[in-house]
Amino acid sequence: MAPGLVSRSLSKVREIVAGAAARNGEPTEKQLDRIRRQLHECAESRGGEVSTRIRAARLADTYLKLDDAGRHAFLRIIALEFGPEPKRIAKAHEAYQAAVGTPKQWDAEAQLRAAMRSSRIRILTQFNAIPQGVKFLVDLRADLLRFLDDDKELKSLDRELDARLTAWFDVGFLELTRVTWNSPAALLEKIVQYEAVHEIRSWKDLKNRLGSDRRCYAFFHPRMPQEPLIFVEVALLDDLADNVQKLLDENAPAADAERADTAIFYSISATQDGLRGVSFGNFLLKRVVDDLQRDFPRLKTFATLSPIPGLVKWAAKNSKDIVATFGEEDWKRLAAAGIDGPESPLLARVLAGDPEWAGNPALARALRDPLLKATAAYLLEAKRDKLPLDPVARFHLGNGARVERLNWLADTSAKGLGQSWGVMVNYLYDPDRIVDNVESFVDTGRIDAAAGVRRLARR
Amino acid sequence: MAPGLVSRSLSKVREIVAGAAARNGEPTEKQLDRIRRQLHECAESRGGEVSTRIRAARLADTYLKLDDAGRHAFLRIIALEFGPEPKRIAKAHEAYQAAVGTPKQWDAEAQLRAAMRSSRIRILTQFNAIPQGVKFLVDLRADLLRFLDDDKELKSLDRELDARLTAWFDVGFLELTRVTWNSPAALLEKIVQYEAVHEIRSWKDLKNRLGSDRRCYAFFHPRMPQEPLIFVEVALLDDLADNVQKLLDENAPAADAERADTAIFYSISATQDGLRGVSFGNFLLKRVVDDLQRDFPRLKTFATLSPIPGLVKWAAKNSKDIVATFGEEDWKRLAAAGIDGPESPLLARVLAGDPEWAGNPALARALRDPLLKATAAYLLEAKRDKLPLDPVARFHLGNGARVERLNWLADTSAKGLGQSWGVMVNYLYDPDRIVDNVESFVDTGRIDAAAGVRRLARR
Amino acid sequence: MAPGLVSRSLSKVREIVAGAAARNGEPTEKQLDRIRRQLHECAESRGGEVSTRIRAARLADTYLKLDDAGRHAFLRIIALEFGPEPKRIAKAHEAYQAAVGTPKQWDAEAQLRAAMRSSRIRILTQFNAIPQGVKFLVDLRADLLRFLDDDKELKSLDRELDARLTAWFDVGFLELTRVTWNSPAALLEKIVQYEAVHEIRSWKDLKNRLGSDRRCYAFFHPRMPQEPLIFVEVALLDDLADNVQKLLDENAPAADAERADTAIFYSISATQDGLRGVSFGNFLLKRVVDDLQRDFPRLKTFATLSPIPGLVKWAAKNSKDIVATFGEEDWKRLAAAGIDGPESPLLARVLAGDPEWAGNPALARALRDPLLKATAAYLLEAKRDKLPLDPVARFHLGNGARVERLNWLADTSAKGLGQSWGVMVNYLYDPDRIVDNVESFVDTGRIDAAAGVRRLARR
Amino acid sequence: MAPGLVSRSLSKVREIVAGAAARNGEPTEKQLDRIRRQLHECAESRGGEVSTRIRAARLADTYLKLDDAGRHAFLRIIALEFGPEPKRIAKAHEAYQAAVGTPKQWDAEAQLRAAMRSSRIRILTQFNAIPQGVKFLVDLRADLLRFLDDDKELKSLDRELDARLTAWFDVGFLELTRVTWNSPAALLEKIVQYEAVHEIRSWKDLKNRLGSDRRCYAFFHPRMPQEPLIFVEVALLDDLADNVQKLLDENAPAADAERADTAIFYSISATQDGLRGVSFGNFLLKRVVDDLQRDFPRLKTFATLSPIPGLVKWAAKNSKDIVATFGEEDWKRLAAAGIDGPESPLLARVLAGDPEWAGNPALARALRDPLLKATAAYLLEAKRDKLPLDPVARFHLGNGARVERLNWLADTSAKGLGQSWGVMVNYLYDPDRIVDNVESFVDTGRIDAAAGVRRLARR
Repeated sequence: MAPGLVSRSLSKVREIVAGAAARNGEPTEKQLDRIRRQLHECAESRGGEVSTRIRAARLADTYLKLDDAGRHAFLRIIALEFGPEPKRIAKAHEAYQAAVGTPKQWDAEAQLRAAMRSSRIRILTQFNAIPQGVKFLVDLRADLLRFLDDDKELKSLDRELDARLTAWFDVGFLELTRVTWNSPAALLEKIVQYEAVHEIRSWKDLKNRLGSDRRCYAFFHPRMPQEPLIFVEVALLDDLADNVQKLLDENAPAADAERADTAIFYSISATQDGLRGVSFGNFLLKRVVDDLQRDFPRLKTFATLSPIPGLVKWAAKNSKDIVATFGEEDWKRLAAAGIDGPESPLLARVLAGDPEWAGNPALARALRDPLLKATAAYLLEAKRDKLPLDPVARFHLGNGARVERLNWLADTSAKGLGQSWGVMVNYLYDPDRIVDNVESFVDTGRIDAAAGVRRLARR
Repeated sequence: MAPGLVSRSLSKVREIVAGAAARNGEPTEKQLDRIRRQLHECAESRGGEVSTRIRAARLADTYLKLDDAGRHAFLRIIALEFGPEPKRIAKAHEAYQAAVGTPKQWDAEAQLRAAMRSSRIRILTQFNAIPQGVKFLVDLRADLLRFLDDDKELKSLDRELDARLTAWFDVGFLELTRVTWNSPAALLEKIVQYEAVHEIRSWKDLKNRLGSDRRCYAFFHPRMPQEPLIFVEVALLDDLADNVQKLLDENAPAADAERADTAIFYSISATQDGLRGVSFGNFLLKRVVDDLQRDFPRLKTFATLSPIPGLVKWAAKNSKDIVATFGEEDWKRLAAAGIDGPESPLLARVLAGDPEWAGNPALARALRDPLLKATAAYLLEAKRDKLPLDPVARFHLGNGARVERLNWLADTSAKGLGQSWGVMVNYLYDPDRIVDNVESFVDTGRIDAAAGVRRLARR
Repeated sequence: MAPGLVSRSLSKVREIVAGAAARNGEPTEKQLDRIRRQLHECAESRGGEVSTRIRAARLADTYLKLDDAGRHAFLRIIALEFGPEPKRIAKAHEAYQAAVGTPKQWDAEAQLRAAMRSSRIRILTQFNAIPQGVKFLVDLRADLLRFLDDDKELKSLDRELDARLTAWFDVGFLELTRVTWNSPAALLEKIVQYEAVHEIRSWKDLKNRLGSDRRCYAFFHPRMPQEPLIFVEVALLDDLADNVQKLLDENAPAADAERADTAIFYSISATQDGLRGVSFGNFLLKRVVDDLQRDFPRLKTFATLSPIPGLVKWAAKNSKDIVATFGEEDWKRLAAAGIDGPESPLLARVLAGDPEWAGNPALARALRDPLLKATAAYLLEAKRDKLPLDPVARFHLGNGARVERLNWLADTSAKGLGQSWGVMVNYLYDPDRIVDNVESFVDTGRIDAAAGVRRLARR
Repeated sequence: MAPGLVSRSLSKVREIVAGAAARNGEPTEKQLDRIRRQLHECAESRGGEVSTRIRAARLADTYLKLDDAGRHAFLRIIALEFGPEPKRIAKAHEAYQAAVGTPKQWDAEAQLRAAMRSSRIRILTQFNAIPQGVKFLVDLRADLLRFLDDDKELKSLDRELDARLTAWFDVGFLELTRVTWNSPAALLEKIVQYEAVHEIRSWKDLKNRLGSDRRCYAFFHPRMPQEPLIFVEVALLDDLADNVQKLLDENAPAADAERADTAIFYSISATQDGLRGVSFGNFLLKRVVDDLQRDFPRLKTFATLSPIPGLVKWAAKNSKDIVATFGEEDWKRLAAAGIDGPESPLLARVLAGDPEWAGNPALARALRDPLLKATAAYLLEAKRDKLPLDPVARFHLGNGARVERLNWLADTSAKGLGQSWGVMVNYLYDPDRIVDNVESFVDTGRIDAAAGVRRLARR
């Protein structure tokens, strides 16, 4: 490592830690020295497992007591001071390139890999020896990801940590568990807290979502018991659901699950920020479909009732283009409802997500067609890096689903109206098309969509 | 990859697979093509998890049906055809070295890591999705290690697999389990089968080892339930054990464990060849000591009664040096017992492990001192790469133990007499010295030994 | 059985069932005939276990669909038509009395027992073969107990059922379980529903009662999993609790359980009406004390904070006697607070449980002494059949506790003010006195009480 | 109780206990007094549960240390000194008979029941509070049953204990468990020890009986975990098994259970002598059939391959009648094989169970027909109290099975040849006939048998 760099980084760390320490009332230099000393002990792994455990616990404790600036400094020390030796890499690389094409290539490759190995991961994995160590690392990565936006020098550390978490959270290690009303209250409390799509308002609401016509499944890791990694809520119905408030109505009678032919995935929540990039969502859906098919052989249709979280945000940036798609008929009806042209301030407010129109049935009727057209366009055409702009669309379409149907006034909560004019979409998982869809989506970005939706987008 | 190399390797694979196929009665070329096609599908991960699972299961099935030559070919395809791109590495390396010392170093390091990533591990980890997938990979690595001796080109693949298994079998993921007479018979059967130190002769022998004055502990991995990774057998006694046959006597009455002050670890067996290099032995001992201390607060002494597997083999190569250490007294006694000098054929046979002397008490008495001297010298002085030559000594001394006592006629089984003249050693784990011992052993190779043993070695 | 009686009972049954059936829209005679036929099939146990199970399930179904009058009729059929044969009993009894004093006495006793055996219990125990069968019988007994008040002819059936339930619910079969925030939500929901002393207002209230300074234990029967039979809530504190609202304050910080020296049993609820007379309350307390002592060795004092449910009811009937105990000082203070003499309507309302005084601090202060005197007198002197009139007092004193302290304004909920002027009592379980207390309570009705309480009662 | 009787019994107890005590080196009178005092304390249940438990444990300890004579004395004290009061019974009985036919009958019946209640059961059930208490009582009953043969005065105690055990071991409380190679070794060891039909010779033999084409099921009681009450071993085959050595051949390859259409129950063992009369055998078979049908829908036939334990014993007493059934053809073949007439000593030895003939194929062939005729006659015609003489026949026919086929040379073990000339029988459980068979067997003693067997018996 270039000495200049180290001292630069060290002085910065000292500065930051000083700030943190000041706020926490601890002497700066002492704390900084202690952290660095502890990290070096970890990297050297002296004294066997006993000391390792004690050290790891102490270090974790230190980390947790730091404030954000302190943690940032802590992670920078690991990232910048425990990387591999550039000179050793250079040498191993030279030997490797020389060996390419000869029988020695593979041994030389192994040597290059050895040279790339850093002490960072050795430090981090020592936390695995303490109870709750895996959860500690996942949370540490969540911190790291936050800092990463503004501090690209943490990127190498993130890559190494990501690789390790990817190995640990390999789908083969995950356990699919049904969450029911017989699950521990402590777990159900976490489901309430982590639910990210449709807020769970009460234990009664929760119990309704675990009723006889519902299923809830979660993935767990053996080292993070009672910490659901991702979970999905399913309703067993007679047809495609078109309204989420109806689905969540606690007073509605339970359907007869034995007769259901449709399973609606109406909420999927990933819970661990620190596992970003470690994907297990589609594997969860696959396992859930298997389980449902075994228990309910009549099920034919597997689909979602999904939010469109980015719709209004996108519309705000593309309002002119959207308004340009409104047809004569649209304008006629809009005018009758009080929107007299492209420059109407009311229209601007509607497009920006102001939900006032929802209380006005005539206006709502008039907005239906033009807004559904905009929605279809958003889902099928708005892209970034060839992939759908909408994160939920990206997830389901990447898993092989198709855009089956748009539903008007499907989520009339404040959140639903605010983010997507209350529109929701059914993504359909058709077993016969999944493989083809995944492949053409990956290769060409092609999106599978029902004719009706496609027509809307074209207009 | 150099095209020449690939075609060379391919034609070799074709040849080998042809041989295998011939023996299995299958058309060569077809099989080879199928394997390669399957591997490419894996590496590309097309079509989502569903297909991944099916593919992995099919591939595992193919592999298991191959004979050794076929498996070797299979692994060579993965090792040689799915490595990283040397040109891409060269480019990333150049950028990296240019960035060293600048804030871009860490991002460049991440890019270099990305370039090093190969498809091999992606292929291998897909097996984790099938039931028994982890065990499959561990066994595959056992195959790989066998081939590696004669085929260094597999080394890079082994390194990648080793790194992944090290992550998966991190001690934090292992579960310590007590093995008792209430354990499943299927598990106990495996204990019988895997016991590597003192053969378990019958279920009665096994039951005795699980009696009230005994403990047996094993490490398990959550994805390999009922497959013990390593296990240790412990006897709770009043003093240091000096004879293993006495320990294993099924008819001896059980000691009163509540009053025991000494725990003797008399057998430690690692079971998975494929996990060579993934060490968890010392962590096992630590956890076991914790558990024993909690259950039996009177325990003061934790020690082993260990075999010395390499002693006779070493003595065969160093017989002259050994004989040179025999003193006047020794020769007097030996002469009286029929060994009349350094050239005695009987002496040669004794040193080579022929157990005939054990039936002759006078001879046994005469051999005691000279052979114990040789043993002490072997344990304290015979080294390779600064570490003890004896693998069991290497393990315990590396964990911080000390050589406490040598025991004459401690294992009079054919195996015991043949590998170490019936001598066994107690390694002592003294909590107050473990950390120091580990450090000085790692730093300087210093071996902690009791004065008596040290004196023997000096003579 | 006297034929007249049967036909009388039958015609009554027909009448009742007719009524029930009418309401349920079923033909009367048919239903009655079917029930009787089913019962006879049960009593004869024809056709092996298969048919037994089917029959029992059908019969249970029939029973559950009946309304109260129908169930009463159903139980009357069993009680009156399936009893033992008086003539057979007479004969066996004659032989028995003749044998008394001879070696044949014991065989004759066995014969008499055989003659007493009725078909009723055979019918009832067949329900045990169906899932939920035990719960079914417990609920059936709850029905039976309700009908018994007005229909003494059911008494013999109740005795037989009671004897069987007593055998089944023998304390040896009960499992003590800790109820925690990790218990299944379905179980916690039942705790909420069954809590009979201090209503659980919300899941937050419940979580507080399962916090780190609390314990909750329940007894379960292996055939009624997740149906708590009786449960107790415990607080771990530094001294005797004197106010239940303070105990239940969700916003109070958790005490440090490790340092607690006092365990307060502040709520005990039995849940199954059908198990009346099958007592396991004191066994529960004993097991809980054992468990607490193991986990918290510092605990010295085990006591309750108990309601006095019958106080106001008793006071209403004895108001004159109570008022007569008021002393000069009492009257002085009462007068100042607006109660000017024995005839004061306000005083009458106070004694009758009207809680208006609680909002008036001066009045509350004035009422303190006279009402505590009345409370002490109630607890120590009000009896029925030599046992304390108050059911909670009867329970704890019968288990060997002593009346330790009365607490003024200890339960200021509407219920607490209404039933016992807000007074609560600590019953103390002193291990050194329990056995003596039980014996003298059973033999002589003597109640152990602290000097302070005794003094109050005497005044 | 007649005073004379008590003192008689007491002095006998003193005598017996004196004898026991002498052998155990304890003072007689003291021990006797202590037992009696302990029993009285139990009967009075003084001092609450705490003391109960301590007392019960002490009493159990006392009992277990006594020898047979001492235990007999112990049980006699309970039987004779803690019975009901004859005078109280007489009074209650008079009131009862007076009330018969009036509405007071049922209350009077309840009073009579109360008068019959004795202290014996109170004493015995206190053992249920100690760990292993249920097992203690079951073993105590086994003792009681042994003494009962010669001491009818224990009968009343046995009846009360039997009634209580019947309540506790109600089939509704039993848990059906599959015993597999994954079951605890401690349990499997008990299976080996309790197997009463075909001895399990080794762990290999046991493993074979738990193989993929086998099933083993056991009933457990929640309070006697790991103590199988009764178990059955099942083989899944293609047709009716006709030879038990073939079934138990460890080297035979496993059949394909998925394709099996026949389940053969080849061994049923009840393990607890103390539960004699508490029947759960037929319920076990029913539950096992349910479980097998769910797992193997192809199964059509459920049958046994059963021993005929009483055949040779019966033949010894009826040899003349048997020989009389031999026909002309039979004698011709027998003469050729060395049995020249009814008086042949060899024939006498054969009938008496001497297995020498089994090694002589010609003789074996000649004996086949006549001995099978005798067997058929034994199974269908030999009765006691209208029920089959053979205990295994009584069990299966009472459960609704039919005698399907006799198998010659089906059990050539020494035991098999000695008890039934090596003949075994298949009892068939035909779901369509079970109910009818049970009823006609119970009502008229009719035995269902296949035409072939019926024909044999007729000859």
